[in-house]
Parts: sequence; C-alpha cells; structure tokens
Amino acid sequence: MTTHHASHKDIIARLKRAEGHLRSIVDMLQAGRPCLDIAQQLQAVEKAIVSAKKTLVHDHIDHCLEHAVQDGDKSAIAEFKAITKYL
Amino acid sequence: MTTHHASHKDIIARLKRAEGHLRSIVDMLQAGRPCLDIAQQLQAVEKAIVSAKKTLVHDHIDHCLEHAVQDGDKSAIAEFKAITKYL
Repeated sequence: MTTHHASHKDIIARLKRAEGHLRSIVDMLQAGRPCLDIAQQLQAVEKAIVSAKKTLVHDHIDHCLEHAVQDGDKSAIAEFKAITKYL
Repeated sequence: MTTHHASHKDIIARLKRAEGHLRSIVDMLQAGRPCLDIAQQLQAVEKAIVSAKKTLVHDHIDHCLEHAVQDGDKSAIAEFKAITKYL
C-alpha cells in the first residue's frame, strides 16, 4: 500500500531542512565550537523531527479515520493504536 | 573557546549516520511507503539524536567539572546549569 497525504510535501521539506541542520552541526563539532551551542542546535533538530513526526501521524490518523468510518473498517483500529505510540 | 572532547569523533560519526537515515526517510516518503514505517524510522532518528546530544552533554560536564574543580572555578556552575537543560 502506498500513501501520499497532502502534508507529505511539507514534511519532506522539513526533513530536508533538518538534514542540512545536522550537517551544519557536524561542521560545528569539527570546528570545535562550544558544546553549549552544539547541544542547543541538536535540541532544535530533535524538536524539528518530533514535530514532523507528529504532523505525519496526525495527518495519517485523520486520513485513515475518514476512510475507516466511511467503510466501517474495524481493522483500522489496530493500526491507529500502533501509530499513536509515535506521538 | 574551542572544544574537542574525546567523544566528538564518535558523536560526529553518529550524527552523519542520522543524516543518512533522514535522507532515506525522505526517500520513503517520496516512494509513498506506509506512514507507520516512516513514523517508526523517524522515532529511531530522534532517539539517535537524543542519545548523541546526551553523550555530548555528559562528556562536556565530565570535562568541565574536572577543570573547574582543579582550578576552583565557580563560574563554571552557571554553565553546568545551562547545559543540563539539554539532557
């Protein structure tokens, strides 16, 4: 099953930014920048990833709930449970 | 002030792996892979970043505490407080 939700384009853009951010943190480490600054930047990347993950999960739940309710599909409940553990 | 702790080489390697992992998650999104799989992979990258950040902070505290105690430097206390918020 392939899934393309409306939010995926935005999530891809956010993850690509996080990837660039991680690269710049590696540069900071290699340049011997202060640990406090590096820890702060790592925290920012972590938050960006958590936020992208939440958007993905919420959007997926919205999308699936809509279909499950429409089709009376009770098997979707197990999948909701599985994906909510990533919130 | 530049800082190069012994652990930084390992942290750089872990962050580079996380960067590659993020790239592969973007590929998964573009290929329309199931959201549950993508959420799971995002969770793994998040954990890798949190773990690298904790190693950085712990190592920095060890390093700084050693110097602060050795030099009787009380100003280091403010920096300990600042960096522990990233744990």
